[in-house]
Amino acid sequence: MIVNQNDKVRTDQWKITPHVLELEASAIREILKISSQPGVISFAGGLPAPELFPLEDLKEALASAIAKYGPNCVQYSLSMGITPLREMVARRVTEAGAKTEISNILITAGAQQAIELVARAFIDPGDYILTEYPTYIGALQAFDYYRARYTTVEMDDEGMIIEQVEEKLKKHKPKLIYTVSNFQNPTGITMTVPRRKALIELAMKHNVPIVDDDPYSDIRFAGEELPTLKSLGGDVIIAINTFSKVVAPGLRVGWMNAAADTLVYFEKVKQCTDLHTNAPCQYMIYEYVTAGKLEPHIEELKVDYKVKRDLMINTMRETFPDGIKWTEPEGGLFLWVELPKHMSAKELLPKAIELKVAYVHGEPFFPDRQGANTMRLNFSNATHEGIVEGIKRLAKLLKENM
Amino acid sequence: MIVNQNDKVRTDQWKITPHVLELEASAIREILKISSQPGVISFAGGLPAPELFPLEDLKEALASAIAKYGPNCVQYSLSMGITPLREMVARRVTEAGAKTEISNILITAGAQQAIELVARAFIDPGDYILTEYPTYIGALQAFDYYRARYTTVEMDDEGMIIEQVEEKLKKHKPKLIYTVSNFQNPTGITMTVPRRKALIELAMKHNVPIVDDDPYSDIRFAGEELPTLKSLGGDVIIAINTFSKVVAPGLRVGWMNAAADTLVYFEKVKQCTDLHTNAPCQYMIYEYVTAGKLEPHIEELKVDYKVKRDLMINTMRETFPDGIKWTEPEGGLFLWVELPKHMSAKELLPKAIELKVAYVHGEPFFPDRQGANTMRLNFSNATHEGIVEGIKRLAKLLKENM
Repeated sequence: MIVNQNDKVRTDQWKITPHVLELEASAIREILKISSQPGVISFAGGLPAPELFPLEDLKEALASAIAKYGPNCVQYSLSMGITPLREMVARRVTEAGAKTEISNILITAGAQQAIELVARAFIDPGDYILTEYPTYIGALQAFDYYRARYTTVEMDDEGMIIEQVEEKLKKHKPKLIYTVSNFQNPTGITMTVPRRKALIELAMKHNVPIVDDDPYSDIRFAGEELPTLKSLGGDVIIAINTFSKVVAPGLRVGWMNAAADTLVYFEKVKQCTDLHTNAPCQYMIYEYVTAGKLEPHIEELKVDYKVKRDLMINTMRETFPDGIKWTEPEGGLFLWVELPKHMSAKELLPKAIELKVAYVHGEPFFPDRQGANTMRLNFSNATHEGIVEGIKRLAKLLKENM
Repeated sequence: MIVNQNDKVRTDQWKITPHVLELEASAIREILKISSQPGVISFAGGLPAPELFPLEDLKEALASAIAKYGPNCVQYSLSMGITPLREMVARRVTEAGAKTEISNILITAGAQQAIELVARAFIDPGDYILTEYPTYIGALQAFDYYRARYTTVEMDDEGMIIEQVEEKLKKHKPKLIYTVSNFQNPTGITMTVPRRKALIELAMKHNVPIVDDDPYSDIRFAGEELPTLKSLGGDVIIAINTFSKVVAPGLRVGWMNAAADTLVYFEKVKQCTDLHTNAPCQYMIYEYVTAGKLEPHIEELKVDYKVKRDLMINTMRETFPDGIKWTEPEGGLFLWVELPKHMSAKELLPKAIELKVAYVHGEPFFPDRQGANTMRLNFSNATHEGIVEGIKRLAKLLKENM
C-alpha cells in the first residue's frame, strides 16, 4: 500500500483548464507586496485610510446586531443577502434618486464579486466587452477568465468619448458596456451628465446593458453631485456599489442593483459560488448605518481625502518637472499621471522602490497593455508627511529620467 | 432624451450565457423557504443548532482581534487568507495527522467556494467528474455551471464501492474524484480505511486528484476516529474543510489544503472572484480558536447532536412502518431514508408540508435524478420535542402511503 508519498504524485500533470492557465497573474499584486515593506511610502494600493476605520463603531454594531438578531447573525442566510440590509440599500439608493425596490438588490462579497457575477452570467468565450481605455484592472481580470475580448473607448476630461461608442457597438456587438462613471479607477475621471445621457441612449438603442461600477461616488469632496447612471437610465443599468470605500473593504459587502428579472440569474450564480455573503458583516453594516453613523463618517472621509489630494497635487506642482500631466479628481481615491511618451513608468518602478516610494504603472489597466508612460497614484492611504515625502522622491526620480 | 423608461428596456432579450440559463435552480431552495414557515418542523436544511452558536465568544473574539490587530481587521487583505489563520489551520491539520505547511492553505468563503474554485480551475465543458451516488447537491451545482458530466459510484455502508472505480476512471478519464468521505451529505455514510487506501491507490495510479469535501469529520460522536484522506494520500488529495459546522456557517470561512504548486491556480481564481475572504470573520475565528474555545465547543456539539440523532432514530424505530430503511451515522448532521421502491419522497413532500414537517427528497442528490424513493433528514437543527413530533408526523404520512 503506497500512501502519502508526495513525490509520486505528479501534480504538474494535472489538467488545469486553459481559462486559468492563461489567466495573467495580477501585475499589481507583486507591487502591493513590495510596497507594503517597511519604510516604503505607497501610492500603489487602493486602500482607504486605515486611521479612519470606525473600528469601535463596528464592534458596537456587531454587539447590537447579536442582541437584536441572535443566532441569525451567524447562521446560514439567503443568497440574495439579509433582508434588512437589502431594504436599507434600496431605500438609500431611492433617496439618492434611482427608484429601487428590494427585489432589485443582491448583496455580494464586495464589488469585485458583483463584477464577477455579471461576467459569469453574460460572457461566452470571445464575446466583446466595451470598456473605457484605460479601465479597472480587477474587472479585466474577472472578464479575462471568461476569455472576453475588448473594444475600448478613449476618455477625455468628461469621461468616455461618446462619439467613439456607437461604431464600436455596431462593429463588435459587445455583451456589456463596462464603466466606472465616477472618479474612475485608475484615472479619477468622472463622466459628465450629457455623456451619461448619450451613453444611456446608445445602450437603449442597441439594448446593451451598462455595468456601472460605482464604488467612489459617495466620496465627492469637490464640484457638484451628479445624477448616477442608474437614476438616469433605470433598467438598462446594472449598478454595482460597495461599502468598501465608505465603511471598510475587509468586510466584503457590496451590492448589485439590477432589473428584478435579471437578478434571478445572478442569484443562481451567487448560490453555486459561495451560498451567500458572510452574515455578520451584513448585520454589522446594517446596524452601523441605522445608528446614523455612516453619513458623518463619509463627511469625515471627504475632508480627509480632499486635504490629501490637495497636498499631493500641490507637492506635484511644486516638484514635478515640466512635461508631466495629471488629473485632478473631485473625489475618489486615485489620480492619474501621464509622463512624456518616451518614458516608461513600468521601467522606472524598480528605481522608485529603491527610493522607497511605490505606485502602480498604467499598463495593466489597458486591455491592450499600452500606456507605458502612465501611472496611478492613490492619495487616500498615505499620511500627510508620507504624501509630501513620497511625491518629492518621485519628482527626483522623474527629473533624473526625463 | 429618453431616460429611465424601464418599459423600453428589453432585459428579456439580453444574452445570458447558456451556462447560466440552463443551470437548474436549486430544488432545495424552495423547500427551505417553505420549511422555515412558522409551525413547520424542518429536517430539511443542513443548519447547525442555532442555540449552540457561541455568540458571546465570537463577539469577544472580534473585540480582542480589534484590540490586537486594529485596522487590519477590516482593511483589504490577502487572497490566500490572513497569515495567522492559515498558520493555525496548517498546525491543526498537521496535529490531526496530515503534514501541512502554511503554503498548502488557502482560506475560502466557506467550503462551497472551495468546491467552486476547484471546479473553475479544472473543468472544461464535457469533462467528467467521478462522484458518489448520491452526492452533495452544492457540489453538483458548482460543477454543473461548468457543464461537467458525471460518472458515479454506488455506496454501501463502507462508502464508495471501490470495485466500480477503476473501470470508470479508465472509461471516462474524469478530471476529479469528488467525495465526502466522512458522514457524507446526504447519506451520513463514512468511507472505511481500507476503502480510503484503495481509492488513493487508484487516484495515484491514474493521477486523478481526489477532492475530499470534509466539513463534518470533527463532529464524530460515535465509533472510532479515522485517518483523513489527506493524511493517507498527501498531495493527491485536495482537502476542503470549513468552520461552518463547528463554529458557525454564516461567517463563510473555510479552507482548501492542497499541494503548494497547485494552490497558485486557486489563488489566482480566488483573486478575480472576490479578492479575498472577509477579514473580520477570519480574525474572529483565529481569536476564538487561540483562546481555546473551539475544542470544548466541539465536545458540546457532539453531545448535543448524538442525543438528537439517537432521539430521531429511536422515534423512527418506534413509529416508522416496516419496509423503510435508514442509515445510522456516527457523526455529522444527516441521515438518509430509503422508502420502498414504489414510493416517491418527492410526491409525498407537499403532503408532509401540510402536516407541518419538512425534509429534502433525494432526487437532487443524484446526478441522473434517480432515487425518487429516498429522502435526507437533518437531525442537528430541530429541538428534541420537534424531532419526536416531526418523526411521528412523517411516520403517519408514510403509513398512509405504503
